[in-house]
Amino acid sequence: MADTVLFEFLHTEMVAELWAHDPDPGPGVSAGSRGEEAGSTTGQKMSLSVLEGMGFRVGQALGERLPRETLAFREELDVLKFLCKDLWVAVFQKQMDSLRTNHQGTYVLQDNSFPLLLPMASGLQYLEEAPKFLAFTCGLLRGALCTLGIESVVTASVAALPVCKFQVVIPKS
Amino acid sequence: MADTVLFEFLHTEMVAELWAHDPDPGPGVSAGSRGEEAGSTTGQKMSLSVLEGMGFRVGQALGERLPRETLAFREELDVLKFLCKDLWVAVFQKQMDSLRTNHQGTYVLQDNSFPLLLPMASGLQYLEEAPKFLAFTCGLLRGALCTLGIESVVTASVAALPVCKFQVVIPKS
Repeated sequence: MADTVLFEFLHTEMVAELWAHDPDPGPGVSAGSRGEEAGSTTGQKMSLSVLEGMGFRVGQALGERLPRETLAFREELDVLKFLCKDLWVAVFQKQMDSLRTNHQGTYVLQDNSFPLLLPMASGLQYLEEAPKFLAFTCGLLRGALCTLGIESVVTASVAALPVCKFQVVIPKS
Repeated sequence: MADTVLFEFLHTEMVAELWAHDPDPGPGVSAGSRGEEAGSTTGQKMSLSVLEGMGFRVGQALGERLPRETLAFREELDVLKFLCKDLWVAVFQKQMDSLRTNHQGTYVLQDNSFPLLLPMASGLQYLEEAPKFLAFTCGLLRGALCTLGIESVVTASVAALPVCKFQVVIPKS
């Protein structure tokens, strides 16, 4: 029945609830398509940060349930491939569409029809609403990576709905 | 992989987040095992109400995705049976354990191992924490019933973890 959409419905409600409680919604999001940097007011930044934190903890928890052999990944790239395939299927019932890297710790994961953006009409007019639908997933990636022993910074950007790029930067240790 | 637990992780985070933002957490929940009535402070009551509201809207949305023939249920009892079986499986991957009614609009749905209570240790010492893990699901049932054309009042009670009873009262029309 409807089990595969349960997560999406719940995510939508969570975003709506956090925005409803936003102490200072301001006149509208002024920033463009950058995930974490968008949201011009303190309240919106806090809501994004709360969503990212929730995603992080869910990602950590999901990471802890991974099969044991997964935890033996040695190559960073293997871990990223795992996220693009197994994690994405577990959460969104589809694989990430592409993964690119500069081989210096920066990875770009592209989803050409990101499920959490699909309910929004395609086009430019809703682009400024996108960041709040990306923060949770940025946290999810960061949390899963953390459980796999990799500290990272994850941001998201949208140039045209519903295409979404997640950038994972792993500082050299 | 971990997709079946995604909802549960997200629900846990949602409860934690709402309680963290509780403006007046007070000295502790003083009420006992009644679902909606527990939570002695205004802040906690508000958080329960927010969770119930989120559950209601998710329940409505799930209800709208039901197969069309479902909407043709004529008997109230059929609708309740449907919730106990199909809705419960969709959300919790298990059926409700029992359904009883007084044939006067009151139904008691019992889950002997309610998944959202399972992470808590069994025993009496955590009983007072239970209501916040039940409010969303009360709303979920009320929302699904609403989509199926039935107005109701749904409360939950726990006598011993993780056994949970949901009471659905349908006012005579």
